[in-house]
Amino acid sequence: MTKTHGHQPDHGNQTRDSATSGAPLTPPHAVIADPFWERYTELVRTTVIPYQWEALNDRVEGAEPSHAVRNFRIAAGLEDGSFHGFVFQDSDLAKWLEAVGHSLAQHPDPELERTADAAIDLIAAAQHPSGYLNTYFTIQEPGQQWTNLLDCHELYCAGHLIEAAVAYHRATGKRVLLDVVIRLVDHIDEVFGPREGQLRGYDGHQEIELALVKLFEATGERRYLELSRFFIDERGRAPNFLREEWERRGRVSHFVGKMAALDLSYNQAHVPVREQNVAVGHAVRAVYMYTAMADLARLTGDASLHDACRVLWSNMTGRQMYITGAIGATHHGEAFTFDYDLPNDTVYAETCASIGLIFFARRMLQLEPRGEYADVMERALYNTVLGSMSMDGRHYFYVNPLEVWPAASAGNPGRRHVKATRQPWFGCSCCPPNVARLLSSLGEYLYQVSDDDRTVYAHLFVGSIVTLSVAGHDVTLRQESSLPWSGRATFTIGSLAAREPRGQHGPGEAAFQLALRVPAWRAGEPQLRVNGEDAAYNVNDGYALVDRAWREGDTVEWILPMAAQLMTAHPNVRANAGRVAIQRGPLVYCLEEIDNGGPLASLVLPADATLEERVSDILLPGMVMLDGRAMREETFDSLGETNRGEAGTLYRPFMPAFTEVPVRAVPYFLWGNRELGEMNVWLRTHAGL
Amino acid sequence: MTKTHGHQPDHGNQTRDSATSGAPLTPPHAVIADPFWERYTELVRTTVIPYQWEALNDRVEGAEPSHAVRNFRIAAGLEDGSFHGFVFQDSDLAKWLEAVGHSLAQHPDPELERTADAAIDLIAAAQHPSGYLNTYFTIQEPGQQWTNLLDCHELYCAGHLIEAAVAYHRATGKRVLLDVVIRLVDHIDEVFGPREGQLRGYDGHQEIELALVKLFEATGERRYLELSRFFIDERGRAPNFLREEWERRGRVSHFVGKMAALDLSYNQAHVPVREQNVAVGHAVRAVYMYTAMADLARLTGDASLHDACRVLWSNMTGRQMYITGAIGATHHGEAFTFDYDLPNDTVYAETCASIGLIFFARRMLQLEPRGEYADVMERALYNTVLGSMSMDGRHYFYVNPLEVWPAASAGNPGRRHVKATRQPWFGCSCCPPNVARLLSSLGEYLYQVSDDDRTVYAHLFVGSIVTLSVAGHDVTLRQESSLPWSGRATFTIGSLAAREPRGQHGPGEAAFQLALRVPAWRAGEPQLRVNGEDAAYNVNDGYALVDRAWREGDTVEWILPMAAQLMTAHPNVRANAGRVAIQRGPLVYCLEEIDNGGPLASLVLPADATLEERVSDILLPGMVMLDGRAMREETFDSLGETNRGEAGTLYRPFMPAFTEVPVRAVPYFLWGNRELGEMNVWLRTHAGL
Repeated sequence: MTKTHGHQPDHGNQTRDSATSGAPLTPPHAVIADPFWERYTELVRTTVIPYQWEALNDRVEGAEPSHAVRNFRIAAGLEDGSFHGFVFQDSDLAKWLEAVGHSLAQHPDPELERTADAAIDLIAAAQHPSGYLNTYFTIQEPGQQWTNLLDCHELYCAGHLIEAAVAYHRATGKRVLLDVVIRLVDHIDEVFGPREGQLRGYDGHQEIELALVKLFEATGERRYLELSRFFIDERGRAPNFLREEWERRGRVSHFVGKMAALDLSYNQAHVPVREQNVAVGHAVRAVYMYTAMADLARLTGDASLHDACRVLWSNMTGRQMYITGAIGATHHGEAFTFDYDLPNDTVYAETCASIGLIFFARRMLQLEPRGEYADVMERALYNTVLGSMSMDGRHYFYVNPLEVWPAASAGNPGRRHVKATRQPWFGCSCCPPNVARLLSSLGEYLYQVSDDDRTVYAHLFVGSIVTLSVAGHDVTLRQESSLPWSGRATFTIGSLAAREPRGQHGPGEAAFQLALRVPAWRAGEPQLRVNGEDAAYNVNDGYALVDRAWREGDTVEWILPMAAQLMTAHPNVRANAGRVAIQRGPLVYCLEEIDNGGPLASLVLPADATLEERVSDILLPGMVMLDGRAMREETFDSLGETNRGEAGTLYRPFMPAFTEVPVRAVPYFLWGNRELGEMNVWLRTHAGL
Repeated sequence: MTKTHGHQPDHGNQTRDSATSGAPLTPPHAVIADPFWERYTELVRTTVIPYQWEALNDRVEGAEPSHAVRNFRIAAGLEDGSFHGFVFQDSDLAKWLEAVGHSLAQHPDPELERTADAAIDLIAAAQHPSGYLNTYFTIQEPGQQWTNLLDCHELYCAGHLIEAAVAYHRATGKRVLLDVVIRLVDHIDEVFGPREGQLRGYDGHQEIELALVKLFEATGERRYLELSRFFIDERGRAPNFLREEWERRGRVSHFVGKMAALDLSYNQAHVPVREQNVAVGHAVRAVYMYTAMADLARLTGDASLHDACRVLWSNMTGRQMYITGAIGATHHGEAFTFDYDLPNDTVYAETCASIGLIFFARRMLQLEPRGEYADVMERALYNTVLGSMSMDGRHYFYVNPLEVWPAASAGNPGRRHVKATRQPWFGCSCCPPNVARLLSSLGEYLYQVSDDDRTVYAHLFVGSIVTLSVAGHDVTLRQESSLPWSGRATFTIGSLAAREPRGQHGPGEAAFQLALRVPAWRAGEPQLRVNGEDAAYNVNDGYALVDRAWREGDTVEWILPMAAQLMTAHPNVRANAGRVAIQRGPLVYCLEEIDNGGPLASLVLPADATLEERVSDILLPGMVMLDGRAMREETFDSLGETNRGEAGTLYRPFMPAFTEVPVRAVPYFLWGNRELGEMNVWLRTHAGL
């Protein structure tokens, strides 16, 4: 067992790095102030983060011990013992620290910060003098570093540490973790590269690529950007690094402990990334990679990477995405399958994959602000990501099904991965911290300023306060939003501080364009009011443009007609043939057995169904349920048996008989918070032939 | 390696056993004379049986060597080498011999009989002096016999040898194989039993239980019946034999070569058989066991076994059977799942399971002639069993899907087991010989005579000639049938030979009741004509009774109205909600892409669809196709894109638009004989609200 390593950080007060407070953040970081969203960010701060800290320290009764913190203590030489958990266990602590960083930026919490500082000191103590840092290889396989990039997640874990360091540094100005990862990355930069004696390799699980971009943006060190580009450029090239490494290892898999087949498309390493035009393989790996590709396209002006991103985006969201913004159609490899294959019952739709989709969408917006990217971002956020967490913040879906039949989840092995209820969040530690870090960093997803400094894009309608650098000014912008329950967002210009004197406008004015997203879900033309007056607007690429010289106190109201709509899927999606989904604003709705009885498949919604909005506080204050009428197919029993033996009990001549019944839909993201039962997003419809 | 064993049979001409030609067979064995069925029995005789013999001898180019014959040569000491193939490889040769036996009974073939005799001599040469016979344990694990009943199929293989011996003896009168299995069974009867020093165990894969009943019926030796009952009675009793054996073995599985979990319901050994009321586990094992249970209930008058059979029948056929007579909803364990879980796309529906279902149905009829048993038998036979084989007799489905999307079979791992085309029959050797032995023994499934010697039941409408022992006479009955294309069966009384003089009827007369099945699929009241005159009839338990004093030359016409009907499934079958299947007579129909274009899911069949019959020779002489009109949902493309980004390409507001198109259905059992494409049994319907 490896004992203590050389580098020991200063265990006293970490000094704040004043450099972070000056330059404006790209993208702008808003502070959330929104009754709907603060419920979630508070849940994360007061429940998820503390609870996960207990889990990481093996103090949650009834939960499998995580061993993540203990692995670091052992690697640091502070404790004896052996490694436990997955080979990527380190990333759980890293994701927790990242969530803490985001949360502290939104809401100072000195006690939490002290806990995090101590964790960071522990991580620093586990770092090798070379900069290497990974508890699995330190404890379990010393000397075997970088010999199984395909399976062992070393660069993946490093990536999560980098993301944590950047977030924590941004929030607190403290450099200890940032310095740790800089040493780690400098070491990686020596080990990997095109030169003689370097490894021309990359990780089996993409993550470090997007993290290195963040590190470049945090430090300005271009080597980190180049290293990210190296990993992206090498991926899938011939001769194939992962294949050669696998051959060298005797084709033995770390996970199954014996020879196993290699499927390079699982790792998106089957062809060079620029030649990939269909989303394949493990969905989380895919979207993490696409995110880095889009980052690199933006920061290096690489048009071929941008093209590849557009093509992959279009394939993924246009042919392989569930209406809930979920991706990954199969649990075999947690993967994409093929175009239009979107089964509802055997779905995978991993929470982490939708989070990665949001990352990718955010980067596509930065490359090119088009409403469709924000539409997808919003779709995944309100439906899959929010829906993955229970109202109590302690239970999670990893698989986010669009159709649940509890008996099938229990009794059909092909559907056993589709849990009918959210699981205690400590059962597996991958998705919950990912939800925590996304929700606590939501403020980064709302706005962006165009490269020419002339336009402020408002992507999401979330109550918040942000300071933007635009048109030579630091502009404070306040947003109030009634989403997702109704469609009104009000923007108020706060202080306008000119960064340097300008001639063409009067004092206290800033001339810039406000670009308000026109969401695809609008049920009519949005209405614009500026300072209380109706105003006209032009729409470009999905954004309404409001160009004027703004003054403090100016208000913009953006009123988005919202109505329940029946949605249909492309006819190539066989699973949804003859079915409709209900959508209202950004929210997908569903039917639950508790409201409608079962089997839900016996209900038929008329094509011209009127769905009345009913505001209720049953699950969330102000939530909108939808009440309507449907036809329920009579059961065989109610029609009387035909007394023809089996033919009468299971199959018989078609004699359609229906009864009109009330039907109630609830927002998909709130399903499963009452009692076990069936749930369906896609509902049979009466085609109106 | 074990060398030659003591017993060497007479390698010269096998002597015929005259005892077999005397007593009437139970059930009666008809000779098939039917244009529809002879095509299949001839395929079996001229293609399947010779081809499989080549395969068993490793002479089929491009096929995995079977090694089955070589294993016997090695075990007999005639050749050096090691065992290859599955642990149950012996059963392939046994099933082949059984098919040969059935075929020889229908159609003498001296060359085939010589080949079979030589194979039988080889089997005899591999038998141990003790009577033990199994090439795997002889070659590979000598001394380890009977130590892994759970996995190693020793009694299963013995069962298939017994069935082969009985069939071959019946057909040829030759005793060599029968004597071999009698020695084998006598040995098994010493090893297994309730006495001190005996194993109170049973096989992981049921089969010997039903085979021992056949051996009892062939030999009259009651010990064989008792041994079968012992296996059935012991199964699932506490303390559980299979669990204790598994514990003794260190929980190591023969198949995975390491420790593996035990699921006793997979083997139907979780509770005693009389307490089983739901069909669970591996479907083939289940129906083989139920078959033996029904046999034993009949032969021992065991009412509790009969009750269990009724309950299991009712659960399986009333809640867990596909409309094609297929069973087994999941490929995980090739198993049943739970009530009303009958997914079409991830179906298992193994051919062998439907064959076992036919065995069980046949025994239920023998216990109690009720039309519903014959309905299921006919349903499984015409749809799943016939459909499993290609027109050329050289390609087979193991999984018989009700819905095929070739792209999903290729691209979704959860549907990879659902092949979109029949596979070369030598790929795996379990289903093809099972089809061969069933089709070549079809003559055993047509008739039965009641215990009181007064009634002849006609279960299936298949052209044939049979000699029945009824009412003190040997009656020859000829049947001509137009099934499955139209519903007319004509029965002609042939010779009437009184076995002893009777007083109450004139010479050349025999008074008995002819019971003609009234199939559930009839599209109206059947018409009965006796000697050309309309006649009235009563119906009891699904059979029309015609009671008279019959004379040679009497004819009975049984005219069954046949029309295409739309069928619906019980509303609890979620997979079929909003869908109908087409059935005409015993045949289920389907839509194929070659006739209708894709996606088939875009087609909607009106509830009042008229389907016109069109006779064609495309696939089979005289086949009936069904032509009608349906509505095809417009694709997004044909409606123009809504230009709303991803929302427009994959999801958009519901705007139903349909075009009326022609639609053509073909018999399900003939699907997949033209080109690769989609196939659907369950079709969207317009509910007619």
